[in-house]
Amino acid sequence: MAVYTILSDQDVEFIREAFGLGAIMTFKGIAEGVQNSNYFLETEDARYILTIYEAMTEVAELPFFLGATEWAAKHDLPTALPIHTKSGDLTLNLNGKTLALCSFLKGFSPKTPNVNQVKSAGIALAKLHLALENYPNKRSNDLGPKAWPKMWDVIAEDADKFETGVKKLIDEDLKEIAQNWPQNLPSGFIHADLFPDNVLYVGDEVSGLIDFYFGANDFFAYDLAIMLNAWCFLPLGREFDLTKGRALISGYESIRPLNESEKSAMPLLARGAALRFFLTRMKDWLRPDDGAIVTKKDPKEYSSRLAFHRAAQSLFDYGG
Amino acid sequence: MAVYTILSDQDVEFIREAFGLGAIMTFKGIAEGVQNSNYFLETEDARYILTIYEAMTEVAELPFFLGATEWAAKHDLPTALPIHTKSGDLTLNLNGKTLALCSFLKGFSPKTPNVNQVKSAGIALAKLHLALENYPNKRSNDLGPKAWPKMWDVIAEDADKFETGVKKLIDEDLKEIAQNWPQNLPSGFIHADLFPDNVLYVGDEVSGLIDFYFGANDFFAYDLAIMLNAWCFLPLGREFDLTKGRALISGYESIRPLNESEKSAMPLLARGAALRFFLTRMKDWLRPDDGAIVTKKDPKEYSSRLAFHRAAQSLFDYGG
Repeated sequence: MAVYTILSDQDVEFIREAFGLGAIMTFKGIAEGVQNSNYFLETEDARYILTIYEAMTEVAELPFFLGATEWAAKHDLPTALPIHTKSGDLTLNLNGKTLALCSFLKGFSPKTPNVNQVKSAGIALAKLHLALENYPNKRSNDLGPKAWPKMWDVIAEDADKFETGVKKLIDEDLKEIAQNWPQNLPSGFIHADLFPDNVLYVGDEVSGLIDFYFGANDFFAYDLAIMLNAWCFLPLGREFDLTKGRALISGYESIRPLNESEKSAMPLLARGAALRFFLTRMKDWLRPDDGAIVTKKDPKEYSSRLAFHRAAQSLFDYGG
Repeated sequence: MAVYTILSDQDVEFIREAFGLGAIMTFKGIAEGVQNSNYFLETEDARYILTIYEAMTEVAELPFFLGATEWAAKHDLPTALPIHTKSGDLTLNLNGKTLALCSFLKGFSPKTPNVNQVKSAGIALAKLHLALENYPNKRSNDLGPKAWPKMWDVIAEDADKFETGVKKLIDEDLKEIAQNWPQNLPSGFIHADLFPDNVLYVGDEVSGLIDFYFGANDFFAYDLAIMLNAWCFLPLGREFDLTKGRALISGYESIRPLNESEKSAMPLLARGAALRFFLTRMKDWLRPDDGAIVTKKDPKEYSSRLAFHRAAQSLFDYGG
């Protein structure tokens, strides 16, 4: 939640020139994004967000992520439109770092979206799935079910000390997922991280979908399962909010109805989604990287959600 | 350079209601200000900066500081106009913290202002001095020459270990200041901290003067002496840039000519100004407060400047 790269006057001028912008009117660091530096940049004609990618690992995949937001923006989705440099590139190198410039999106993210906002988010997710149907680039989901056993092996012993009894439960989850994870659900580009802080609103309408940096090809219904976890639990993750679940699912289905296989798979997909966030949060909690600038989030929030999913029988339990 | 207070949805709505604003379109934390949290807030009609005062000490003096920016804004200076609450107050209390809402100013601060920009800043300072001539509120400068001996006593021994020989030099500075500091120069409201990062530009024109939180009543020429230190040395503070000095002084004098007493006092005023920043930086360096969120700045930059001022004979040495 800060700016990690300070730009010199020459850097700013280099950026302005590379993207062919007019005179800069405003240039302010914004306290947003957990891993990158972001600046609000305004010229006489337009407003932008400048992102400097601090974690070098994802840079090779930027063409996939930025290409997806560009594709979505061109299909009338409220995503940031990446600006091309005068040489036609989506990114620019500056002092060994990679940066991108995107159009500024209006709106802001409520901490606790209301029911109408949850419904709008469901609609937006389904529209995103349809809009990217013909997006030609592909990326496998490296945080999908095949990765979970390995992620768990590394932290299982310590996790059990952190939260007594969790090892037995997660072992069981992984076993069931390995046996019963669906094979042939409708799939395509998924956002894979559409938490409330990645959706902007003006009133109850979605004005922005941001942060595509976990985007990958996977089951559409798994993307919805991630949102059931991220949007529809009461604070601290203990209790499912059926009203919000209903709003999310009905919003989604108003654009893209789920088929019977997707519906019946939902409890296991939601369990997998909760497990995915439990695993990465637990890893960050137990083994924070030295150079990491990520705020640690409590993994226990997700162990409570896992308990709910283990008991769920059908989409009906989620308000469907 | 971050946001220290996270606001809930209810907090944001409370603020919107208290200031009688329309629907909020954008609300983003900005990475600016070293001691306070700042948000960019935009409604359909206007743009604002919301400041949450994290350091409680200065809250009692906010009516003086905010009153000064308001007075200046109403006298056509490019300062942020504080918005009054519906009850007419300049500040609002929220969960034990004090906050203020001001109009958003266009422009940005170059790291190294060019000569034209330095001249514009000199003009702006003189206009500020004249505009606040009848500002009725007064505040004594608690970081002025009377405070320096006490500030030095606390750190002198450690400072000498940090920078060998500095004790003898500063003792001498303080002695000369006590003996020769001018008594009757033209005075009034001074900004007292007009560094480049407190001035915004669109092109070479000043579009904003910000951060009035050191404002006090003192000699006008001392305010200019602070700027000679902050704007007119080459990087690392070793060498005075005569071109910039000339630009600053001529800009200032194009609006408010200096009298003979002010001119002849300038070397000592500039020495005092350098000492004031040397002392606070050295204190922050040697004794960082536990709760401090201030970025430490190198005090040595100012000991180099002090050396220049000790040798200066007249305003001529500054480009006057």
